[in-house]
Amino acid sequence: MPEPRIAVVGATGAVGEELLAVLAARGHARGTIAAVASANSAGRTVRCADRELPLVAADAFAFNRGDVVFLGVDAAAAMPLAQRAVAAGARVVDNSSAFRGDAAVPLVIPEVNPEALNTDPPPRLLANPNCSTIMLLVALEPLRKAFGIEHVHVATYQAVSGAGRAAMDELRDQTAAVLKGQPAEPRAFPLPCAFNVFPHESAIDPATLANGEERKIVAEARRIWRAPDLPIDCACTRVPTLRAHCQAVTVTLAGVVSLDDVRSALANAPGLLPAAAHTLAATGRDEVLVDRVRWATSELDRPEAGRRRLSLWLAADQLRKGAALNAVQLAEACKWLPARAGST
Amino acid sequence: MPEPRIAVVGATGAVGEELLAVLAARGHARGTIAAVASANSAGRTVRCADRELPLVAADAFAFNRGDVVFLGVDAAAAMPLAQRAVAAGARVVDNSSAFRGDAAVPLVIPEVNPEALNTDPPPRLLANPNCSTIMLLVALEPLRKAFGIEHVHVATYQAVSGAGRAAMDELRDQTAAVLKGQPAEPRAFPLPCAFNVFPHESAIDPATLANGEERKIVAEARRIWRAPDLPIDCACTRVPTLRAHCQAVTVTLAGVVSLDDVRSALANAPGLLPAAAHTLAATGRDEVLVDRVRWATSELDRPEAGRRRLSLWLAADQLRKGAALNAVQLAEACKWLPARAGST
Repeated sequence: MPEPRIAVVGATGAVGEELLAVLAARGHARGTIAAVASANSAGRTVRCADRELPLVAADAFAFNRGDVVFLGVDAAAAMPLAQRAVAAGARVVDNSSAFRGDAAVPLVIPEVNPEALNTDPPPRLLANPNCSTIMLLVALEPLRKAFGIEHVHVATYQAVSGAGRAAMDELRDQTAAVLKGQPAEPRAFPLPCAFNVFPHESAIDPATLANGEERKIVAEARRIWRAPDLPIDCACTRVPTLRAHCQAVTVTLAGVVSLDDVRSALANAPGLLPAAAHTLAATGRDEVLVDRVRWATSELDRPEAGRRRLSLWLAADQLRKGAALNAVQLAEACKWLPARAGST
Repeated sequence: MPEPRIAVVGATGAVGEELLAVLAARGHARGTIAAVASANSAGRTVRCADRELPLVAADAFAFNRGDVVFLGVDAAAAMPLAQRAVAAGARVVDNSSAFRGDAAVPLVIPEVNPEALNTDPPPRLLANPNCSTIMLLVALEPLRKAFGIEHVHVATYQAVSGAGRAAMDELRDQTAAVLKGQPAEPRAFPLPCAFNVFPHESAIDPATLANGEERKIVAEARRIWRAPDLPIDCACTRVPTLRAHCQAVTVTLAGVVSLDDVRSALANAPGLLPAAAHTLAATGRDEVLVDRVRWATSELDRPEAGRRRLSLWLAADQLRKGAALNAVQLAEACKWLPARAGST
């Protein structure tokens, strides 16, 4: 059977570029790959493995039956593109938030809820969760399975690349300007990002005062875990790093365990690597790095047998496992693409 | 009465330089100021207001009765210097951690526990709390007073200047190198700091796995609040910013209140400014900035009247309120220096 045609939509963006790299690294770049972008990119090319792919304008691109389509564009653009692709008989993984709240569209992290892919009829459209949700749940799933989870608290340290390639350029350019004593002029963010930490720029909901990223984590984690009442505290923040997010996580376990039990559960979990975790260590890696597995400091006064609140420190490449890799894994899990061991 | 002689020890360091700036800004730089540093700085000068102060070697410096001494050196150096100064009849504010656990030495934030200065006999040696403790408690004290606090959770986003001037130089130099495609060579930190986020570099306690910064926050907050059992969860992290720390704080109040009540309490608190809080906004300011006052996302399912867990976002200049300003305020509160309205 020939390999299906793959279309990467948003191929010039940060997620699109990473999709092409992950497809190549996992051996999916031997067949036809269409690199689709906005009309003003037409005529240019993008690189995928050892090939230069001509960019095709999304408006002019004809989706075909059987295509495997990865959408790496924002929610407003993804909505009509996904509908066009599905109507043409293509199979679609959308990286945006457009369909994450749609009960008819599976929202899946392969290491966490692969069973959600087993719909009847099989799904044609999948939603890739938010990058912060993915890394958090990959790390917590082994604890949830083994011990149960009663409460999650997460403070994020998010790289600018979550806001796209322009944001990465802005951090580099602004930082260079500031080092020369020149002013930092924000464009991608509402505030200067060079040498600055500020609340995540997504829209604040006036009813809850939570920003968009915080609302995504809560809603998506509850949906993926089928735990609609799970208490989750979130504070989402941008830090001046290029790619890979970090998270300070405090999780209250339902069952009383030992740190050794916790470490064993984490050591054998798919997609997770106990290791020194920091932005640069996670950059370019497939795994979510988990570090500083310890009792929360508030538990230290309690006898060890009564402790239930854990503290963890995570780092993961949000363009890779947080976006492109998870999307490609979903296509593999659905057998839209052949299952292949990753090599990065 | 003539103004006392002031000695700033560690005058070439990041805290020492800020002490000289704060002393000048608060009108304390008109009398004699001795700028004291290590022997290898002797012969050089440092600036204070419009004067160039010659640097004196600490080993050769004679403390006098009545001197007001600010120590801006590390704990190992502070211990013998403080003892020498107190023995000579000087009055000392130490910025290091050397005396913070010593019950005989007041550990004070003027906005939080000024009554701890009223010892009999009056204190000759004061301990300045850790920068992260100061900003956290300045922000939470009005809530503790008005409503009571049952649990504190804080994740920090700490600027490199907490590790001193060399760390600030390292962040600038490393960032410039990385932008040119050159390798980042860590010296002040165990890991590269340019475009990187990593756990706070202070020593990990093998019994608790908490790092030094986390242990300081817990121990100091409990001591200052005289709340030895208060549960406090901490995760302390370095981010690639030059100065001003941020904190994501979740606090469980003892009493049920409304967000309006919370905002009123915060609006009228000394040293605190409700404002857009980010690293650059706090840099060079006296106040702790408090922002994003909201219910924790885990509380949003509860009816409003039953909510008790709050989320706050803080930013403060840790060299100023987190070190130099708090130290000078302590000397003013003890009337070692005349009380003067700050002007920055």
